Amino acid sequence: MKVSLIQMQVTDRKAQNLAHAEELISSCRGADIILLPEMFCCPYSPPSFIKNAEPAEGEAFGMLSRAAREAKAYVVGGSIPEKEDGRIYNTCFVLSPEGELAAKHRKAHLFDIDVRGGQRFMESETLSAGEGPTVFSTSFGRFGVCICFDIRFPGFIAEMRGIDALFVPAAFNMTTGPLHWELLFRARAVDNQFFTFGCAPARDEKSPYVSYANSICVSPWGRVLARAGEAETILTAEVDLNEVQAAREQIPVGNAL
Amino acid sequence: MKVSLIQMQVTDRKAQNLAHAEELISSCRGADIILLPEMFCCPYSPPSFIKNAEPAEGEAFGMLSRAAREAKAYVVGGSIPEKEDGRIYNTCFVLSPEGELAAKHRKAHLFDIDVRGGQRFMESETLSAGEGPTVFSTSFGRFGVCICFDIRFPGFIAEMRGIDALFVPAAFNMTTGPLHWELLFRARAVDNQFFTFGCAPARDEKSPYVSYANSICVSPWGRVLARAGEAETILTAEVDLNEVQAAREQIPVGNAL
Repeated sequence: MKVSLIQMQVTDRKAQNLAHAEELISSCRGADIILLPEMFCCPYSPPSFIKNAEPAEGEAFGMLSRAAREAKAYVVGGSIPEKEDGRIYNTCFVLSPEGELAAKHRKAHLFDIDVRGGQRFMESETLSAGEGPTVFSTSFGRFGVCICFDIRFPGFIAEMRGIDALFVPAAFNMTTGPLHWELLFRARAVDNQFFTFGCAPARDEKSPYVSYANSICVSPWGRVLARAGEAETILTAEVDLNEVQAAREQIPVGNAL
Repeated sequence: MKVSLIQMQVTDRKAQNLAHAEELISSCRGADIILLPEMFCCPYSPPSFIKNAEPAEGEAFGMLSRAAREAKAYVVGGSIPEKEDGRIYNTCFVLSPEGELAAKHRKAHLFDIDVRGGQRFMESETLSAGEGPTVFSTSFGRFGVCICFDIRFPGFIAEMRGIDALFVPAAFNMTTGPLHWELLFRARAVDNQFFTFGCAPARDEKSPYVSYANSICVSPWGRVLARAGEAETILTAEVDLNEVQAAREQIPVGNAL
């Protein structure tokens, strides 16, 4: 199975971001599943979430559906600010190769962080939380999706344990990224014996929120299969899903927590 | 708080191992808490567990109690094969600076592993499992103890989440050690925002089970504070338990799983 992670540069113009994402998706030739970053359509800041929020079947969704159909690939569509009943969610739409909605995940753990002398970011001042983990079935296997801060919760992730791979649109910052980004993707892969894929926006030092980037693919053994730097790039990994079963047979931690 | 990890060379003679452990404990001057490796009194093999098993108040316990009293330190006494009612457990005794039993942990997850082309080891053919995690209170803070394979179970470890540090007598091998040793001690530290300490026997290439060694101290931020090599050594770290509270305030993952 060929997986492509689009570590794209996000600007403050939504229309431009959507067009750019569509172009990048169409350039992922031969990919079976394509992953976009968290908030790929607007800068990562509360005013920007409010300004760019759209209902579930809005233009971002329309673009993702069209792009998936044209690429004949699953698209785990990063995330966008989704508006419903006056609330805004941090939402990932997953599209099938037919362009149909395969799953929808709303970030369940909002990123409220206050590192002394470091980052302060209170997502819950603007966003509402989703309810649980999200799993979807494909012709390749069963996959899970969660968003960024969700990955810090081992029990939440373990609720998806039977899956073959976890897709994570994310955007760690320059404090938590160097400390924990690789560690968490490797740890969740080993704890649950599945592949993990983390896709972040490219780094933009001028943005109000500077993304650590470093999009990453990890095997069920915790090995880093591929890792991007800070620039815009498409990171591609050919993965053998049989490794999931091999790891589970060889280190039988089972489904026990 | 000063913590000393005794990465000792284990021989096939129990009396010699006990005497050597006692000597090493007495050499940890100024330590507040001293940690020994898993099965520090005998080689890590099922026949050796059977041959060296002793009841709870046996000679190993007697040595640990005396050594703790003389060192005026808490001693997390690695583990020994403990015999009770015809069963053998992989047991850790924790002694107070007064030489009294502060806690007793029986390894809850037995190490049954079968890596194709790698390690095969079925601990459950010889040993019985303990029941749950183990926590004890000291004049410094509340600590947890688990043994080796137990650390692979995030939910089990999270049951101890309120603690300040986790002490882990362990003995990873030459397959799982390079893959997962550091990763798991860092991951559990970050997941639960406490210190982790892993103490293994020194490496002996002639042993039936070759220990990876690499005893390790990790902060609640996942930083490796100290790490041993493969030889016999005493690894000492001065730790500031206030870091626990700081990490919990700054990345509020709370007690949620």
